[in-house]
Amino acid sequence: MSRRSLSLRFPLLLLLLLLPPTPSVLLADPGVPSPVNPCCYYPCQNQGVCVRFGLDHYQCDCTRTGYSGPNCTIPETWTWIRNSLRPSPSFTHFLLTHGYWLWEFVNATFIREILMRLVLTVRSNLIPSPPTYNSAHDYISWESFSNVSYYTRILPSVPKDCPTPMGTKGKKQLPDVQLLTQRLLLRREFIPAPQGTNILFAFFAQHFTHQFFKTSGKMGPGFTKALGHGVDLGHIYGDNLERQYHLRLFKDGKLKYQMAVGQEVFGLLPGLMLFSTIWLREHNRVCDLLKEEHPTWDDEQLFQTTRLILIGETIKIVIEEYVQHLSGYFLQLKFDPELLFRVQFQYRNRISMEFNHLYHWHPLMPNSFQVGSQEYSYEQFLFNTSMLVDYGVEALVDAFSRQRAGRIGGGRNFDYHVLHVAVDVIKESREMRLQPFNEYRKRFGLKPYTSFQELTGEKEMAAELEELYGDIDALEFYPGLLLEKCQPNSIFGESMIEMGAPFSLKGLLGNPICSPEYWKPSTFGGDMGFNLVNTASLKKLVCLNTKTCPYVSFRVPDYPGDDGSVLVRRSTEL
Amino acid sequence: MSRRSLSLRFPLLLLLLLLPPTPSVLLADPGVPSPVNPCCYYPCQNQGVCVRFGLDHYQCDCTRTGYSGPNCTIPETWTWIRNSLRPSPSFTHFLLTHGYWLWEFVNATFIREILMRLVLTVRSNLIPSPPTYNSAHDYISWESFSNVSYYTRILPSVPKDCPTPMGTKGKKQLPDVQLLTQRLLLRREFIPAPQGTNILFAFFAQHFTHQFFKTSGKMGPGFTKALGHGVDLGHIYGDNLERQYHLRLFKDGKLKYQMAVGQEVFGLLPGLMLFSTIWLREHNRVCDLLKEEHPTWDDEQLFQTTRLILIGETIKIVIEEYVQHLSGYFLQLKFDPELLFRVQFQYRNRISMEFNHLYHWHPLMPNSFQVGSQEYSYEQFLFNTSMLVDYGVEALVDAFSRQRAGRIGGGRNFDYHVLHVAVDVIKESREMRLQPFNEYRKRFGLKPYTSFQELTGEKEMAAELEELYGDIDALEFYPGLLLEKCQPNSIFGESMIEMGAPFSLKGLLGNPICSPEYWKPSTFGGDMGFNLVNTASLKKLVCLNTKTCPYVSFRVPDYPGDDGSVLVRRSTEL
Repeated sequence: MSRRSLSLRFPLLLLLLLLPPTPSVLLADPGVPSPVNPCCYYPCQNQGVCVRFGLDHYQCDCTRTGYSGPNCTIPETWTWIRNSLRPSPSFTHFLLTHGYWLWEFVNATFIREILMRLVLTVRSNLIPSPPTYNSAHDYISWESFSNVSYYTRILPSVPKDCPTPMGTKGKKQLPDVQLLTQRLLLRREFIPAPQGTNILFAFFAQHFTHQFFKTSGKMGPGFTKALGHGVDLGHIYGDNLERQYHLRLFKDGKLKYQMAVGQEVFGLLPGLMLFSTIWLREHNRVCDLLKEEHPTWDDEQLFQTTRLILIGETIKIVIEEYVQHLSGYFLQLKFDPELLFRVQFQYRNRISMEFNHLYHWHPLMPNSFQVGSQEYSYEQFLFNTSMLVDYGVEALVDAFSRQRAGRIGGGRNFDYHVLHVAVDVIKESREMRLQPFNEYRKRFGLKPYTSFQELTGEKEMAAELEELYGDIDALEFYPGLLLEKCQPNSIFGESMIEMGAPFSLKGLLGNPICSPEYWKPSTFGGDMGFNLVNTASLKKLVCLNTKTCPYVSFRVPDYPGDDGSVLVRRSTEL
Repeated sequence: MSRRSLSLRFPLLLLLLLLPPTPSVLLADPGVPSPVNPCCYYPCQNQGVCVRFGLDHYQCDCTRTGYSGPNCTIPETWTWIRNSLRPSPSFTHFLLTHGYWLWEFVNATFIREILMRLVLTVRSNLIPSPPTYNSAHDYISWESFSNVSYYTRILPSVPKDCPTPMGTKGKKQLPDVQLLTQRLLLRREFIPAPQGTNILFAFFAQHFTHQFFKTSGKMGPGFTKALGHGVDLGHIYGDNLERQYHLRLFKDGKLKYQMAVGQEVFGLLPGLMLFSTIWLREHNRVCDLLKEEHPTWDDEQLFQTTRLILIGETIKIVIEEYVQHLSGYFLQLKFDPELLFRVQFQYRNRISMEFNHLYHWHPLMPNSFQVGSQEYSYEQFLFNTSMLVDYGVEALVDAFSRQRAGRIGGGRNFDYHVLHVAVDVIKESREMRLQPFNEYRKRFGLKPYTSFQELTGEKEMAAELEELYGDIDALEFYPGLLLEKCQPNSIFGESMIEMGAPFSLKGLLGNPICSPEYWKPSTFGGDMGFNLVNTASLKKLVCLNTKTCPYVSFRVPDYPGDDGSVLVRRSTEL
């Protein structure tokens, strides 16, 4: 017991006298009535856990944080050394996005694997696994561990009995959401994403993420219907057995050929129906390939093995093309589960509320949608179910690949048709009592911002924010992410990358197919199926399932990195 | 791809000609009609995975088995070296159960920790995690991963199209179950367990295991109602939220004082009600202790934190007293999750069908039950709900601690009142098509038996078995475990230990509270709660919840290792 560093019981006031002030800890408002919950001050630093004792006492549990002291602020020797040697996130980002020729060399050597392993472990280690809290439990409990109907959460909620809505900082009331979003998030003029990101990327993102972001309308904002909590392809196969059975043909492992869509809201956008159709075709194509090698397999085995192959293809494409594009890194990312086989890594994942909020990337959406010579307004595009049938997969992929998406970060780039989404996210985050943006910055190893101007990198929006929030330490999570200045030549700011990447990579590599137990040819029906996973690409996904091969990329043409080369096609059904 | 050793496609017949015979692989019956499923021969050794190709081909996936070749029989160099150096399980067992004074020394040094870590890792590595198959899927699939209503299974079922019920060996029909159990499992005369095991141990075992063995009557033998798949204390708190809410007082975290029993079948035996009562008292006792330190905590937080403390206490007692007693090891076992923090280990568990079958230890039950001067027949004991109230906890603990239990292994020790349980297990194993005992021996790193005489260590039962099964390779799983000769001075044979220990330890240490994320004082409400976990014992569990402290042990008195010392009591409620 003595080796563990749960700090001593300490009256908060005594603490105020004894300790040198640390940021955002000790500025207790002398006007607040006596027994304020001391955890409202977020006293525990460096991932220490605040536990309230008595009425006005608290303890920080610093176990395995690498720090000690009442507030987990005193680094152990090796923590200090590591901190001194570790480059800052912004410097690391600079290195990874500069020096093309050096990276061309690195990518051809074993250093690529070493760096990829480092990326995976450093990022994943920021995600608690097994998961910790949920909307009803701000402490570790069997219920939040076992009840997968909840989203998990990375930081506990702001305690209910705090002086202000965000803890102790900021105004007694949070800014009006309509005002906030209209002043700071609404698009004035379309700001295109740098690096040529197109709306095919946007639709891929939306289609992909809607397998694990499915907030339950019935049970409320803390709950999800996507109980697989990751890449289970529930958007293709349905999020429950009953729905799966409705979608299946029960012959040769296949899905029904027409309108078999796992996700119930994909009728919303032709871009979603597009990817549903492509994956449906891919499923049936793989079934045929498997059946050829395994004529004795029954429908169930063909279906299940195909599903695992498609999960693998998805992860491959997401890491090596989607995340690669998003990161802007010159390091060539690699999907290779074996990189983690000698490392402590938990093959499990739980989708968190914070990840869900963070991933509302609606500024990607353009002002209107261009297909061939035709321009579609939102009114014409939404719920347009005939478009896919009229144009066909090829034409839509081609059109979406050629239209630029909007920049996500930096503020003021929500088309007014989707602004309500930002309103809803912010409302939900208040209902869920998410901690301040700066607390999340600290949680993910970033320095808290000291002013709004430091956050936005300019003065106008900073002044608006100052007026609305009063204190940078009271800024909310989602507005912070979307209003932060973008990294140079990047689609969003530092926080989105540093918080998003851990969730994303943990979700991808935490999939059971990446475990040593599963990651072997037999899991995918043999070498052929394993090979499908290991050589999957966006282009093959599209062009092996269309008659002609359109322009298909996550970048508009004529941007460095786009790839217009033609792939040998195979005829397909549907 | 080339690095992975999925063997080449090979017609089975060609294989028969080309390869030197390996045990139990190649004795194809020439009379069998041509396209026999080649996996019926269990060709893949050393945990290789058999995949059928075409009609009469197969491949063994030897990935990460340490072996290569068409049947995963050719050891890689380091595998060969390791195999040469590794002591046999029986030799290891001999070492661990002999040389008391040497072990007294070892237990006082750091070697204890090193050996304990070795025990945990070597055992756990035999359990696939994430889990693999289930009763409907003999291959890795998303369904068997995600649908926790199934028990998992370690080995796939005997393929449905095999020449004999056990694959290719043995008779066309398995022996009559009634005949089998009456000849070989029915007790002639009570055989007491060695080492003084008492029926308090038996009831503890039954109570403890019924939180995770809850075969679903509604859904069938492959399914469980205990969806926590491990030590979640569902037998105290109910296996679902609705039941939990029925049991809770919703005040100060407590359970209702009267007859709040999580498990629906515990009315069956006074021994089960006894432990339910003790744990119920312990829960409410811990709630009081927590509330004293945390007066601001609500009912839910007190309840949830108490539950985690009781989970910890359970694991502590099970490892350091229950498993310790069962093993007969002189190595003092230690519950310390930190032992695994630098090792690859998955904090998850899935209860397997084989573990469930293996744990039917009904020979423990005596001929009748002795409480004070009174002898109770089965008819008087079963469903006797007044006994606990009449005698009280102290008297029953005392009585059960003084009566010896029966020996589990070695055959012919089922009281006829419980013989039907063995009948049911064997019937179920046939319905579930469990692979032969010898295949499980190999799966757990043991040499397959070559004769029934080698199995039983005598001639009479061996001759009966020979007559009933015809071939040692056709012997079933459960009969094999119960008829194997016992280890010297041990309650059962080698297979029960070598197969049971991995399941058991994986289940105990795979609990999320043992993960680095959870294993810290704050998870248990602070140092006090963490201390309750780390100092828990059977004696404290009983005597801190009774007015007087009875004789309480897993051994009858006057056996080496029993501990009659008196503990300071505290008054308790209920």
